[in-house]
Amino acid sequence: MKLTPEQKQEIADQQSQQNQTKRVTSPELEKILYEALPVLDHGFIRVVDYMGDDTSIVQSARVSYGKGTKKVSTDEGLIKYLMRHWHSTPFEMCEIKYHVKLPIFIARQWIRHRTANVNEYSARYSILDKEFYLPAKEQLSAQSKVNRQGRGDLITGDQADEVLKILKDDATRTYNNYETMLNERFDGTVISESKAGLARELARMNLTLNSYTQWYWKTDLLNLLNFLFLRADSHAQYEIRVYAEAMLETVKKWVPITHAAFMDYRVGAVNVSAKGKKVIQKMASGQKCDFDSSGLSKREWNELMTSFGFTEKIV
Amino acid sequence: MKLTPEQKQEIADQQSQQNQTKRVTSPELEKILYEALPVLDHGFIRVVDYMGDDTSIVQSARVSYGKGTKKVSTDEGLIKYLMRHWHSTPFEMCEIKYHVKLPIFIARQWIRHRTANVNEYSARYSILDKEFYLPAKEQLSAQSKVNRQGRGDLITGDQADEVLKILKDDATRTYNNYETMLNERFDGTVISESKAGLARELARMNLTLNSYTQWYWKTDLLNLLNFLFLRADSHAQYEIRVYAEAMLETVKKWVPITHAAFMDYRVGAVNVSAKGKKVIQKMASGQKCDFDSSGLSKREWNELMTSFGFTEKIV
Amino acid sequence: MKLTPEQKQEIADQQSQQNQTKRVTSPELEKILYEALPVLDHGFIRVVDYMGDDTSIVQSARVSYGKGTKKVSTDEGLIKYLMRHWHSTPFEMCEIKYHVKLPIFIARQWIRHRTANVNEYSARYSILDKEFYLPAKEQLSAQSKVNRQGRGDLITGDQADEVLKILKDDATRTYNNYETMLNERFDGTVISESKAGLARELARMNLTLNSYTQWYWKTDLLNLLNFLFLRADSHAQYEIRVYAEAMLETVKKWVPITHAAFMDYRVGAVNVSAKGKKVIQKMASGQKCDFDSSGLSKREWNELMTSFGFTEKIV
Amino acid sequence: MKLTPEQKQEIADQQSQQNQTKRVTSPELEKILYEALPVLDHGFIRVVDYMGDDTSIVQSARVSYGKGTKKVSTDEGLIKYLMRHWHSTPFEMCEIKYHVKLPIFIARQWIRHRTANVNEYSARYSILDKEFYLPAKEQLSAQSKVNRQGRGDLITGDQADEVLKILKDDATRTYNNYETMLNERFDGTVISESKAGLARELARMNLTLNSYTQWYWKTDLLNLLNFLFLRADSHAQYEIRVYAEAMLETVKKWVPITHAAFMDYRVGAVNVSAKGKKVIQKMASGQKCDFDSSGLSKREWNELMTSFGFTEKIV
Repeated sequence: MKLTPEQKQEIADQQSQQNQTKRVTSPELEKILYEALPVLDHGFIRVVDYMGDDTSIVQSARVSYGKGTKKVSTDEGLIKYLMRHWHSTPFEMCEIKYHVKLPIFIARQWIRHRTANVNEYSARYSILDKEFYLPAKEQLSAQSKVNRQGRGDLITGDQADEVLKILKDDATRTYNNYETMLNERFDGTVISESKAGLARELARMNLTLNSYTQWYWKTDLLNLLNFLFLRADSHAQYEIRVYAEAMLETVKKWVPITHAAFMDYRVGAVNVSAKGKKVIQKMASGQKCDFDSSGLSKREWNELMTSFGFTEKIV
Repeated sequence: MKLTPEQKQEIADQQSQQNQTKRVTSPELEKILYEALPVLDHGFIRVVDYMGDDTSIVQSARVSYGKGTKKVSTDEGLIKYLMRHWHSTPFEMCEIKYHVKLPIFIARQWIRHRTANVNEYSARYSILDKEFYLPAKEQLSAQSKVNRQGRGDLITGDQADEVLKILKDDATRTYNNYETMLNERFDGTVISESKAGLARELARMNLTLNSYTQWYWKTDLLNLLNFLFLRADSHAQYEIRVYAEAMLETVKKWVPITHAAFMDYRVGAVNVSAKGKKVIQKMASGQKCDFDSSGLSKREWNELMTSFGFTEKIV
Repeated sequence: MKLTPEQKQEIADQQSQQNQTKRVTSPELEKILYEALPVLDHGFIRVVDYMGDDTSIVQSARVSYGKGTKKVSTDEGLIKYLMRHWHSTPFEMCEIKYHVKLPIFIARQWIRHRTANVNEYSARYSILDKEFYLPAKEQLSAQSKVNRQGRGDLITGDQADEVLKILKDDATRTYNNYETMLNERFDGTVISESKAGLARELARMNLTLNSYTQWYWKTDLLNLLNFLFLRADSHAQYEIRVYAEAMLETVKKWVPITHAAFMDYRVGAVNVSAKGKKVIQKMASGQKCDFDSSGLSKREWNELMTSFGFTEKIV
Repeated sequence: MKLTPEQKQEIADQQSQQNQTKRVTSPELEKILYEALPVLDHGFIRVVDYMGDDTSIVQSARVSYGKGTKKVSTDEGLIKYLMRHWHSTPFEMCEIKYHVKLPIFIARQWIRHRTANVNEYSARYSILDKEFYLPAKEQLSAQSKVNRQGRGDLITGDQADEVLKILKDDATRTYNNYETMLNERFDGTVISESKAGLARELARMNLTLNSYTQWYWKTDLLNLLNFLFLRADSHAQYEIRVYAEAMLETVKKWVPITHAAFMDYRVGAVNVSAKGKKVIQKMASGQKCDFDSSGLSKREWNELMTSFGFTEKIV
């Protein structure tokens, strides 16, 4: 990630603010407020605003005045209870706003999470930065044989070099042609004084999906956790997972108690189906229990065994 | 509105906070933060948290780093432009949270605005306050003859006294019976040691709809303005309109430029239909224009004339 | 539940429709379309429209043309897979609309589910029916000692009679006074020709929360299942649970494969936390495992044991 | 637009369905159900399901049983009234589902309308079609000088040929390289038996933004009208406007009364600000009225004059 001198100056200006407020603050999050945290080769996330902290959740759950009358241990117990029992509305009382720079094909996955507010850099209005995502070599995986939407073994050697060359050359060429059609360079210099440039809203269609865009993305804590549950998961595409992981760190700074409850009750949890429950009941009471009598499909049996780490029993 | 000593102390505690933050602040809103602003006889609204200010809207519209590089006049021009052209997403970048105390029949209207986060005082869990709304005499209107969901002439004299007596007596009696069924007074004292109290989730059904409830209500600025557009309107029921009006004042303190644009382009604006436009075109160019040739229904014609104050022309 | 002759006639008219359509239909649901299924003493639910069936989910998941090219067994496998892995968007492709008659205090719980479309009978505009909910004797439970928002032992004998008398008398009296203030009976007859009636939007505040209201409520299948997951649960208040249970039966007729998957993977499932998983792992591998070494709170331990039916182990 | 034989067969199969239903149907919409209506060079829209018609709106507004008891003229009056007074919830009672094929850069605009359900063709899972959008020559406009996000004069001659050549060559080359990286052609044939293909979720990033994707998109009538209000507008980008215009025709077939009210009160309407209202008032009453005394900005003055067709008065 490389920031321009202007961007650096603006971040420095934002971080130098020293405002007084009667609102609750999250001291650990304040420390990294506005900071551009690098993700992928040219992307970043920045927390640019937030509202509330762990005590706001507790306060809303109690719909009472004030805060701080209860000990932290009690607040923690309440937050854990809310998380465990899907009492979701108190978590909606905290809000956070990120500035994110990310490749367009990832932006397309991300935007599927609808309960959020978004303002994206507009390529109808402005010229996109000359930046595109190139995977690191250790991310160049082949299509998985077993999971139709996942990655398998690493591609290496000449084939890896060829892939990277294609991605780089095609992105460069299409970007150069984007400038040619616009009759304008990314830095605003006009190419030919005697020509008009193609409308930006048209020229942009020539860019490849690994071009970087950026947006402000604002959501409440509940919907953020739902996003992170799906996108920080091992089944999520690597390129969005790294964003989710970076955001998860900011959640830890912002609302540490909620973060801990989320890791225990959601991220690290297993959902056991009604049929799966019967299998676990038998196993725990020392009864014989095998796939054939379980009523589970082979896939379900394996998922259940894997989720509890009973690897020796997989069919 | 009467606050308990505990409530007063808690508000004082909240208001005494002096936190440092790098976030933008809204100085005028900070002055009234947490304050209980009275509405109706026992209700109030309190702003208990907020995120962003006018510059946040501008910043999102520009999806650029930083703030303050543009002069306020330019910010104002941009905000007016956004409001005029229904570019709505930048207004979603500000968020506010209210604590509201309000009668249940008004809460039922209010909750129809779905794009908000709510935590309401739970009468399954706790005993409701012994407070109910009684209209002021100048609000005791008869059913309107012309508007099937509005108010007409004032009811006065003995009939007004009778109405107020009914409302007061019935609310008092049903509340007393609520306590009897709960076997517990509103202050927690048990009535009969030898009896069990009816489950709170059941006993509450005996309360009348003018009982007060309270909630935390959080929404973004766009949805707040949509709410205020409908509920601060003269066609809204008086009892919700006074809440909307009090909230509109807080919006003025929070985001004064947006507030001004909202008053000009939304609240004070007229929506003229395609057919109505032809009428206005004729009138403005001095052509003869009457109801018969307008193609409007009588109701539309009158609404159009009224909205421009052309009262003499009403059919 | 008692329907007026007009209501019966209208339902009969609706049910007599024989329209041709190229849309998919759900034959079992068609059989009960428009029918008023009784709930509580005066309430009902009616399915009044729907869109899609199990094959619509499959089709959307495949984003392919047509339907029916795959065998049902495969469709079932796909729906189960989607349900198990929280692939939620295909379930949003089916839509259903209910007409519901329900007590106001239940309507207030129900409306908290925001992702739905609602048109409610308006008491600003019309007079509410003279009907209110009175619990059956076997539902008159005392407040629970252990669960602050639940029910405990049954209230019986004189106290039960007293409670029912209070509920009936207060609802009757407040309704009569509602008519007095309106100067109009529920059937539209005017009480005194010499008086004006109080505005309906005001008079309604005198009614008790067990008064019945009605609404059209429309939602997609995903949000319906989320609603049913919470409201058909044993922790839900009885008076909303019976509505959820009646609706669950209509889901079974409408999308039987999805219904089966929902019962297995959601309703009958257990969510085991990260810490809880370690306990189950030990138990299943025959290791000693007790509360003290589990790292769980007492409450969590008990919830875990209960959920697997290991009742002998509760602390 | 070119459909494969398989697609044609599937559409024919869907259209040959003759199901009986008690639901209301929209006969004009049934006639084109499932039909692929061409948009742009390779795109289309198809209505694949719907729920409700004009009478459903009326019924919900009345929250009454049955339909058809009122004359159509009355239904029309009610729908117009609802539209004029922003009574929006009855329009949410109708639902429609489209199958859309569209270029990715348009899909990115479209998806910003969040209140809809979407299932998109997944390029993590499958190979995208070898189809990309090339503008017709009469759409090759230069960037507008006056509107920073619009189009100006047409680009012609050699420059137009060059732009089209760039777009075609780059899309073709990047697609070919996409196949090379996948080690698989769009029709499923493997290129080299000795190589593994790059994961699809990675290879797709090489495609240009004018590649076609497709999705199922389902929304209610209110949100559809909001979408069409913005996207069928003359300020919308041409490439999304043509989709909106095609959809507007389907709305006309589906709910003709609502369509007419929408055209009159929304599409053809003018929103006049509080300040603008004073200008119109003066003009209509024959008073002198000029820009200087209007209090409007030059831009606002011009927008107001243009909206009423008072072109001679523009500053």
